[in-house]
Amino acid sequence: MSQDCIFCKIARGELPAAKVFEDNEVLAFMDINPVMKGHTLVIPKAHHDPITQTPPKVLRKLITIVQRIARAQVTALQADGINVSQANGVCAGQIVPHIHFHVIPRYTSSEPHRNWVPIKYDTPQEMEEYADRIKQALT
Amino acid sequence: MSQDCIFCKIARGELPAAKVFEDNEVLAFMDINPVMKGHTLVIPKAHHDPITQTPPKVLRKLITIVQRIARAQVTALQADGINVSQANGVCAGQIVPHIHFHVIPRYTSSEPHRNWVPIKYDTPQEMEEYADRIKQALT
Repeated sequence: MSQDCIFCKIARGELPAAKVFEDNEVLAFMDINPVMKGHTLVIPKAHHDPITQTPPKVLRKLITIVQRIARAQVTALQADGINVSQANGVCAGQIVPHIHFHVIPRYTSSEPHRNWVPIKYDTPQEMEEYADRIKQALT
Repeated sequence: MSQDCIFCKIARGELPAAKVFEDNEVLAFMDINPVMKGHTLVIPKAHHDPITQTPPKVLRKLITIVQRIARAQVTALQADGINVSQANGVCAGQIVPHIHFHVIPRYTSSEPHRNWVPIKYDTPQEMEEYADRIKQALT
């Protein structure tokens, strides 16, 4: 399972990602298919999936990093709101079967709100720039 | 703030709700505007909002109850998938400004997936029945 898992490969450094946070247990990086610029994923480095089978200790760690990313999005990206979203199962919209929390900045000026409408970064460099801004605002 | 907060009133027992879980710190109950039957909200009894200003200790507790609700939805409602969603700010789709996690059962047979399309229970009794089924499956 984890041998072929894209997020495990990112966690092992075998695939590139625009990282915003990393410690021994958790990694946060830019979603390459964002719904808003700055859309960040928070994953455990160890392979767990779905939420029902993830150790509670791992969930507790993940949600505190989700909070820190949300704070940094408010500071760095002037987000007016934040969506936190976590999907389990293809029928719930999950694509990569390795537990991940989406942290999505939202703006009063933008539509739609909580729904899932993919956008694109103008350039790969723009994605890196968003990652850097969030990373620098992390406390 | 909390004086007029709907979720604080539910937590204090001043407004009714179809409850599925309750302890000293956390309450889980049916969303009266569900996107799927069985759609459950998990809130802290104390007033906190948004996620950026919620004590990490409270978030850690909430996410473990979210997990237990998700497990119970799989068991009791035969959910094929689960969406966990948490909105902060009107522009993110938040309606009640008291932090809450949505736990939403999803089915392979149903569309759409992670998007937000409200439905209705056929009767108030049906909502109570869903609450009872989830409550009885909680472990």
